[in-house]
Amino acid sequence: MELLQTLQNIVGADNVLTGDAVRARAVSWVDHSPCQALAIVRPASTEQVSRALAACHAAGQPVVPMGGLTGLVRGCTAGPHEIGLSLERMHRIESVDPVNRTITLEAGVPLQLVQQEADKHGLLYPVDFGARGSAHIGATVATNAGGNGVIRYGMTRDSVLGLEAVLADGTVISSMNQMIKNNAAYDLKQLFIGTEGTLGIVTRLVLRLREAPRSLQTAMVACSGFGNVVQLLKHMDAALGGSLSAFEVMWNEFFRLVTTPPARGTPPLGQEHPYYVLLEASGGNAERDQARFEEALGEAIESGLVADAVVASSEAQREALWALRDDLEQFFRLGMPVGFDISLPVSEMEDYVREVLARLEQQWPAYRRFVFGHLGDGNLHIIATGPPSRDAKLGIERCVYEPLAARNGSISAEHGIGLEKQPWLALSRSEAELALMRRLKAALDPRGILNPGRVLPA
Amino acid sequence: MELLQTLQNIVGADNVLTGDAVRARAVSWVDHSPCQALAIVRPASTEQVSRALAACHAAGQPVVPMGGLTGLVRGCTAGPHEIGLSLERMHRIESVDPVNRTITLEAGVPLQLVQQEADKHGLLYPVDFGARGSAHIGATVATNAGGNGVIRYGMTRDSVLGLEAVLADGTVISSMNQMIKNNAAYDLKQLFIGTEGTLGIVTRLVLRLREAPRSLQTAMVACSGFGNVVQLLKHMDAALGGSLSAFEVMWNEFFRLVTTPPARGTPPLGQEHPYYVLLEASGGNAERDQARFEEALGEAIESGLVADAVVASSEAQREALWALRDDLEQFFRLGMPVGFDISLPVSEMEDYVREVLARLEQQWPAYRRFVFGHLGDGNLHIIATGPPSRDAKLGIERCVYEPLAARNGSISAEHGIGLEKQPWLALSRSEAELALMRRLKAALDPRGILNPGRVLPA
Repeated sequence: MELLQTLQNIVGADNVLTGDAVRARAVSWVDHSPCQALAIVRPASTEQVSRALAACHAAGQPVVPMGGLTGLVRGCTAGPHEIGLSLERMHRIESVDPVNRTITLEAGVPLQLVQQEADKHGLLYPVDFGARGSAHIGATVATNAGGNGVIRYGMTRDSVLGLEAVLADGTVISSMNQMIKNNAAYDLKQLFIGTEGTLGIVTRLVLRLREAPRSLQTAMVACSGFGNVVQLLKHMDAALGGSLSAFEVMWNEFFRLVTTPPARGTPPLGQEHPYYVLLEASGGNAERDQARFEEALGEAIESGLVADAVVASSEAQREALWALRDDLEQFFRLGMPVGFDISLPVSEMEDYVREVLARLEQQWPAYRRFVFGHLGDGNLHIIATGPPSRDAKLGIERCVYEPLAARNGSISAEHGIGLEKQPWLALSRSEAELALMRRLKAALDPRGILNPGRVLPA
Repeated sequence: MELLQTLQNIVGADNVLTGDAVRARAVSWVDHSPCQALAIVRPASTEQVSRALAACHAAGQPVVPMGGLTGLVRGCTAGPHEIGLSLERMHRIESVDPVNRTITLEAGVPLQLVQQEADKHGLLYPVDFGARGSAHIGATVATNAGGNGVIRYGMTRDSVLGLEAVLADGTVISSMNQMIKNNAAYDLKQLFIGTEGTLGIVTRLVLRLREAPRSLQTAMVACSGFGNVVQLLKHMDAALGGSLSAFEVMWNEFFRLVTTPPARGTPPLGQEHPYYVLLEASGGNAERDQARFEEALGEAIESGLVADAVVASSEAQREALWALRDDLEQFFRLGMPVGFDISLPVSEMEDYVREVLARLEQQWPAYRRFVFGHLGDGNLHIIATGPPSRDAKLGIERCVYEPLAARNGSISAEHGIGLEKQPWLALSRSEAELALMRRLKAALDPRGILNPGRVLPA
């Protein structure tokens, strides 16, 4: 095939994988079947990405960008007529500026290495989630990844100062801004953040770093009603003056699952409460921060917002509390989990969850139901787990998404759309919004070669 | 004129101002000469904006959106063949949700009313700057306004959750998202934030509110070198764990100007130091926050970062310190001020300012030079003031912008581009970036009727 020869000329023969070399790779972290891509191209520079895309553009060849393959919406699943584009060779950290508090790097660097590099300079890269070891930083930008620190530091979008991206036709847009403030005309980087590689391929980045926290205060508390959970969020947020860095809520069923054998976790609080909250603050003065944290928590107990509480008094205790929140393995024990990542106004949440759980119980009684999430950001994860079935998955999706649409919620808070949620997108977006998205797509990728069919219909 | 008749049918005859009714209005806050617009149209709803734009689009009629006219880059200066579009009748606050911490409102509400409405609910709208009484909230979004709180809460962009906008052809894009996290496809609101009304007219908004701070700590400190200023920023930011809310730096000349008669301010510290910093933190616990603030400041004094300091011990003292920073009137006493709003990496700042001041001194010795700004955000304001002269203005611009371009700085940190900075834009943006901006403009406003010639060349 002529195009493959051209691509070999650009990136070198060793860096155009085909046949068994492609099949040896899995589709993704979730789907271990062999990758079906026509080829996987591995450029070493922005210039090679540019030339490779120009060639694909000229040939009308669909291209699927591939990161660490840890996404959850099949955004990187390449079919047999698609070429995968992996930036795995572009993993250079170019520089850290500790005064300006920025890091400049290539898009193929794994998230964890970004965090580690920042740490070496007493700085923090605040985006963090479970797949940190494999997720490419460029892919976290392309998907606007969330995670646990959003309540304090925002989404990935809020940590991107500048970037370089390549358009479908090979045009390089170098917009490597290093400043927090830059209103010199359109903020082009926004086009490439959260658009899942459908408008361009991010090749380099300037990220904002923060001063690393010097102290952490962590507690698990129990609440007797949802109204108390919401009031607790407002109380702690106000009392801690900007240092609240996690507010993770678990409904009772979730808490019992992860604190009952065969789960390894033990219950730090009685298992009878309807809601549990994992609270964390991070600050700059360990002694003063701990006193302030405990005072704020004490007020919440006194005023009846909190029914019971345990404060971590060591790093081991802190890790044990977080291990409960992160013990998602338990879902797999119970069958095939159907997972959701939705957001809606906090004021609608109690009523919404009640409706979803009632629908699921009535229509899919064989599936167990769990709810947890980043309540401080309006983001819930809902899991239904039971016998694997295509019909059940569809029916469960209906139970979750329909009441969400009625409340103007979002079908994707932090995981994106990919192929997986594409059929449901019209529940969260109006026809006018979708038409404008298509107009953007047509303007930037007129031949539709970039990740076609993901996010928007092909 | 047929178009004016159509517009009258849409918004009512009283709401299409022409002739003397237009001339009775000033061009802007800075330019008091009569407005030259062909007409000023004042719609009362998104639907009227939509119909009015559809009519202008059909007629190829240029439209200039008008807010409170307090911008500094001539973004709203309508010429005799342009129609002004003012949302001054769209000033309804629709709702406040104290649980979700959002406010929903029309775009013509003045910023100060947004702040006051939030305050009634114990909440804060964190964007703040001098023109708060007249600036329309929609215009602050269209210009991505900055201000004093950016170091803590970000730019206006970071406070916009959702919006409704009307495209040039009248298409209404209603994207009134209320959630902090929403990755359901492209984040369309970004197209209308900071694009100065060239891609669409923002008509309604959902803004994010924060818990109102319960305590403020304020100090003015003197530093003997720029390196100390930078280290102080890092030290205070780390020690205060997220509550640092202002870090405003004044070079010596600025400090002396505002603390020497006829200025009303008196020097809270000796006038001999090269740099002064106005520091502020805001928190949730007055007593504890004050102790932590003073401890952090004490460490800075002990380690030699700070040469002298004064901490405000009352609201009156706090206001007196801020009054120094805000006493920009003094520039006008000395002649015609030529002002700049630039940003560059903090690590380049000392060297850059030295070069600019030397150039100005050599080439424009009749002009006095002042430097101050939001150093925590990499944003400086430079003022040269002296005899009014068109040539001098151009020459001074050259002295400021050329060394900036060499350091990859931005010619506009927070004030935008408008007409004023358009000729200099190529210093901050590459040809590829400008071409992509034009591609976006063509996709969204193919006939080029929205604020033509502002931001990008017509």
